[in-house]
Amino acid sequence: MDFDSFLTSLGTSFIIFVVLMCLFAWLSSKPGNTVVYYPNRILKGLDPWEGGSRTRNPFTWIKEAMSSSEQDVINMSGLDTAVYFVFMSTVLGIFALSGIILLPALLPVAATDDSIQAAGKNTTSIGTFNDLDKLSMGNITAKSSRLWAFLVATYWVSFVTYFLLWRGYKHVSELRADALMSPEVRPQQFAVLVRDLPDLPKGQSRKEQVDSYFKAIYPDTFYRSMVVTNNKEANKIYEELEGYKKKLARAEAVYAESKSAGKPEGTRPTIKTGFLGLLGKRVDAIEYYNEKIKEIIPKLEAEQKITLKEKQLGAALVFFTSRVAAASAAQSLHAQLVDTWTVSDAPESRELIWNNLNIKFFQRQIRQYVVYVIVALTIMFYMIPIGLISALTTLDNLKKILPFLKPVINITALKTVLEAYLPQIALIVFLALLPKLLLFLSKIEGIPAVSHAVRAASGKYFYFTVLNVFIGVTVGGTLFKTFKSIEKDPNSIVDVLANSLPGNATFFLTYVALQ
Amino acid sequence: MDFDSFLTSLGTSFIIFVVLMCLFAWLSSKPGNTVVYYPNRILKGLDPWEGGSRTRNPFTWIKEAMSSSEQDVINMSGLDTAVYFVFMSTVLGIFALSGIILLPALLPVAATDDSIQAAGKNTTSIGTFNDLDKLSMGNITAKSSRLWAFLVATYWVSFVTYFLLWRGYKHVSELRADALMSPEVRPQQFAVLVRDLPDLPKGQSRKEQVDSYFKAIYPDTFYRSMVVTNNKEANKIYEELEGYKKKLARAEAVYAESKSAGKPEGTRPTIKTGFLGLLGKRVDAIEYYNEKIKEIIPKLEAEQKITLKEKQLGAALVFFTSRVAAASAAQSLHAQLVDTWTVSDAPESRELIWNNLNIKFFQRQIRQYVVYVIVALTIMFYMIPIGLISALTTLDNLKKILPFLKPVINITALKTVLEAYLPQIALIVFLALLPKLLLFLSKIEGIPAVSHAVRAASGKYFYFTVLNVFIGVTVGGTLFKTFKSIEKDPNSIVDVLANSLPGNATFFLTYVALQ
Repeated sequence: MDFDSFLTSLGTSFIIFVVLMCLFAWLSSKPGNTVVYYPNRILKGLDPWEGGSRTRNPFTWIKEAMSSSEQDVINMSGLDTAVYFVFMSTVLGIFALSGIILLPALLPVAATDDSIQAAGKNTTSIGTFNDLDKLSMGNITAKSSRLWAFLVATYWVSFVTYFLLWRGYKHVSELRADALMSPEVRPQQFAVLVRDLPDLPKGQSRKEQVDSYFKAIYPDTFYRSMVVTNNKEANKIYEELEGYKKKLARAEAVYAESKSAGKPEGTRPTIKTGFLGLLGKRVDAIEYYNEKIKEIIPKLEAEQKITLKEKQLGAALVFFTSRVAAASAAQSLHAQLVDTWTVSDAPESRELIWNNLNIKFFQRQIRQYVVYVIVALTIMFYMIPIGLISALTTLDNLKKILPFLKPVINITALKTVLEAYLPQIALIVFLALLPKLLLFLSKIEGIPAVSHAVRAASGKYFYFTVLNVFIGVTVGGTLFKTFKSIEKDPNSIVDVLANSLPGNATFFLTYVALQ
Repeated sequence: MDFDSFLTSLGTSFIIFVVLMCLFAWLSSKPGNTVVYYPNRILKGLDPWEGGSRTRNPFTWIKEAMSSSEQDVINMSGLDTAVYFVFMSTVLGIFALSGIILLPALLPVAATDDSIQAAGKNTTSIGTFNDLDKLSMGNITAKSSRLWAFLVATYWVSFVTYFLLWRGYKHVSELRADALMSPEVRPQQFAVLVRDLPDLPKGQSRKEQVDSYFKAIYPDTFYRSMVVTNNKEANKIYEELEGYKKKLARAEAVYAESKSAGKPEGTRPTIKTGFLGLLGKRVDAIEYYNEKIKEIIPKLEAEQKITLKEKQLGAALVFFTSRVAAASAAQSLHAQLVDTWTVSDAPESRELIWNNLNIKFFQRQIRQYVVYVIVALTIMFYMIPIGLISALTTLDNLKKILPFLKPVINITALKTVLEAYLPQIALIVFLALLPKLLLFLSKIEGIPAVSHAVRAASGKYFYFTVLNVFIGVTVGGTLFKTFKSIEKDPNSIVDVLANSLPGNATFFLTYVALQ
């Protein structure tokens, strides 16, 4: 990719941004779209158009976002958004504090040297970003005392990073404590999730088992328990029943309406019983639905009984009468061996991954290790398939494989755009799919809550980033350079290593900025 | 060390054992020694001589030990002894189950081969244990299919080890649960240890701070708190006071006795006030002690006030009204950040390392890392000073350095004994002192309880054993052999490595047995 393609890529992205921004401004100013654009304001009972179109254009939106306090953010969008903002402002702070000191100091130091010009070439930069390289550490003569500036710079970046991360950590910790202590209680704060229930003693139901166990340990604070039950079958029948009830209500409404309009006896609605109501015998709708409902109710009751008796799984939610009791119970061991009565914080009910709750302790351990191995393979060897696909999708290859594209590709403007995007397309697709793959893998580990699975996926993604960007790109690059140097001069290993280490710091800065 | 010296060393140890055993039998049969030899029986109110000398000789003692059940052991000596017995029987079980299968199978396999005789020498065994080597894997020809027997043997040992360890773990877990649930309650089961109390708010005492904090969290189960206080000064004065009180009581008793014997007015005892009662003015003892006591009491009261006000440290014991509440509290987080209100299980009060309780969280962390570095250095480089000392203490060196020893050393019998012990003396002294050093290091880590420090020291000792015996002796030996082989034949590395791996298993077995 040459410098022109890079600028084209940048320009295209900016044009897309401007177009979308204008579209947003236009669409959000239509009163009919308020439910789409201001759902939160409507839910909170605020006027979505408070202040009229004067205050509702994209620029006031930005101004409002800038001027709102943290408490406003928490009130409007919840704790998660506020924490995300702390994260953003920490990263921005690291970048700004580093940049304010380092750019004015290091750019002149690098630019006023002339290593690249003097050498007439630079090993790593042939054909890529030649002009930008003059501003980088690569432009400094080997063993020059100017390198000390870059060494000091790495320490400055480290110091700023540690300090801001520590401040951010304390702040988030305070936000979290405030949320946990807020008078607005949530059901999950009173509950714990119990998994790995031991085998059922004879003549006892799951509920009795859980109740007697927790009542014995927490006689004062135990409230009640809810055993996780596989009600898929019963639910299906229930939904069928509800469907017929709705249809019956509609048929009755139709009948009642037809009555009032002149004809006192009305027209009883009829339907066909076959496929989609198009085929089969025509019958009276109200009678038909009533019959169906009568048929289904005993079936549902029978299924519900079977479900309660046979399909209660080895997990339960246990509720307490106080938040402190629940928090304390979630942190305590409840059984002699680690593989029974595993207790953890209860997540919000909508977050539970119900299918995972019944997975036993040792199976979870095994699943975890299998997933770890798969993730390790994915992280370390993902470049093999991507490299193969990239090699196939170069313009020259496309011309050979699909010759009918030739006239299109030969247009210069289009060629520039294609050259900017084509080589990366496999990588872009992979990077877009990777979080989904990692989330899927985290879920099959047996994790009980979606947010926990997301956290696990983020951890995996973190290893991907560290391993590939830092270790792969920088150390890999160093080794490659080293081997090339050794070929020429076996004594240069130490020089190359010494040069590459402070380079990683500036690279890290750029990387954080680009992310 | 030749084979004769080895046998001499073994014989000496056996003779010492027999002598001590006889001494024990003789001393323990004296009725006056019962408090020394049967303190436990006396404490439990049993007759130490139940059954007379017929049942109290060393052999019935052994028979009794063999026939007593686990419950007897727990009743007599507590849970720790029972757990130690489980550990012993597990190790013995591993050794026996491995030995029963492996010795009859592997010894003939090794002994009927003739690699050593055929080669006329064995690289690792020149001059050491030539006869025993014929029974080892070293006697098998390289690449012989007999080596499969040793490979299978390693799997058998692993299987036996895993199975017995799992059984032992479950058993100990049950013993521990029984002890925790026993109706015989212990004070530490109702308490938690709180460290890293935050800075005192103005106008509040430590006790108020701790009480209000825990009363808010556990309104129903909180009982009371006890702040750790540095009462060294007050205690010194108190002991002085008690000393004078005892002396006063003695003087009064002496005076009373002198009264009854004919003279109704009696002789008032006198003492000298100077050094050790030998110098100084002679005064009336009862008056002098009474004065001293009167002097000290207000001093003690003042010191006690100061102690309570100024010397209360940042740690406390918090007591609850139920065992469950205390166990649950000890496992829960009690503060937002990890470095305040650190809560842990309360150890027995006699086990507390009082000086460590006030060490702050971050200092503990730093101490831990410093200790880890010191331990790592000790474990890895201990051979350097020991090697130097050993090199100095050979017989030949001793003759040179201390020539007057020559006539003594030249006696053959004495020479054999000295040769058996001298080279190891530095190592023996080091190995004897190492546990004490490790315990000292564990204590300065800031661990709050003695038993916890002992556990930490055991962990460190474990790493010493693993690193030195397994890695040092076997891998080190392999590498040494490898380098020697490579000198002769660069292709033999793989052979040597392949040969040495199953060897480690038999070595492990011998090691376990010798321990």
